[in-house]
Amino acid sequence: MSRLDAQVEFLLTCDRLKAVTRTTLLHSGERAENSAEHSWHLALMALTLGEYAPPGTNLNRVMELLVVHDLVEVYAGDVHFDQSEASKEQQTQREAEAAARLFGQLPPDQREMFGAAWQEFEARQSPEARFARALDALQPMLLTWGPGGIGSAAHPELTLGRLLALKHPALKDFPELWELAQQTAARAVKAGIMPE
Amino acid sequence: MSRLDAQVEFLLTCDRLKAVTRTTLLHSGERAENSAEHSWHLALMALTLGEYAPPGTNLNRVMELLVVHDLVEVYAGDVHFDQSEASKEQQTQREAEAAARLFGQLPPDQREMFGAAWQEFEARQSPEARFARALDALQPMLLTWGPGGIGSAAHPELTLGRLLALKHPALKDFPELWELAQQTAARAVKAGIMPE
Repeated sequence: MSRLDAQVEFLLTCDRLKAVTRTTLLHSGERAENSAEHSWHLALMALTLGEYAPPGTNLNRVMELLVVHDLVEVYAGDVHFDQSEASKEQQTQREAEAAARLFGQLPPDQREMFGAAWQEFEARQSPEARFARALDALQPMLLTWGPGGIGSAAHPELTLGRLLALKHPALKDFPELWELAQQTAARAVKAGIMPE
Repeated sequence: MSRLDAQVEFLLTCDRLKAVTRTTLLHSGERAENSAEHSWHLALMALTLGEYAPPGTNLNRVMELLVVHDLVEVYAGDVHFDQSEASKEQQTQREAEAAARLFGQLPPDQREMFGAAWQEFEARQSPEARFARALDALQPMLLTWGPGGIGSAAHPELTLGRLLALKHPALKDFPELWELAQQTAARAVKAGIMPE
């Protein structure tokens, strides 16, 4: 198989990300969001909200991480952010296997490049990964409880306290975004679409 | 309205791109692709196929253009690439109005930045816009007629000659990608999913 044929095979496998359903609904509430359009929305957020990253954050790298971050779901599926520790460990194992299988379709240099981007995102260490994860934590909040949002169909029991406790680790280092998350949750309680 | 509130409003308006349906089916054939997941797939293609752009092409800019290029469809809708000149002119007018309306939701500096990216893509002049448009021309061909593809449900009458004539302007300057497009069309004819 030629190098280009392998790249095409990879790109067509990745097409399946459009069939991976998340628990978040679109802002209209019409249907669940899928992981491909979610990844696009995050890349657009990086372009729009880049000024809230610390100076020196490489926003191009943030976009790369976001385009790649959910690819392993092609084989491993998506999971909700509020899950047990045992379930988290199982998912980590599934995703590592999925990464080997998916990126293994690429030529060796690109296998390495995509694997490194995915691992950088997972490791939450670099400024770029941390900002990417903050956007990933914020986006479903905006869709679900932002202006015009209708609340969570999948998790109507989620309280303001529980939600903010879950989101705090990803958002705490970005003051404007953390403030936005808190305002968004408070508005949802006021609108009667989230228990306090 | 604060700067961040305006950015959030813009991002939630852009969520509607997930409801803009294209004529291309997913590679599985299960349903039509939408413009948001299409934009993500193109950004992934820029990461994967960047080596086929001429040296010096700024691939980060290519990704930015691709993330932004379909946004005006939020108000203007999507159109098939095989359309009349009159229909093209109407669409151009609709898209210019949509751009003013959509990017007008952003703070002035970002209104300018997003408008400039969209216009750069539309103008087809910069190396980055040309490569972005080549990927945009190639992607639906791969989904529809690439390995495992099932052919075009919306345009079963499209012949190899007509398809390649329509795709040639966008792809001719990228030899490997133009070769891939020709191979893909030839395979589709051989597989009986495209008239010759």
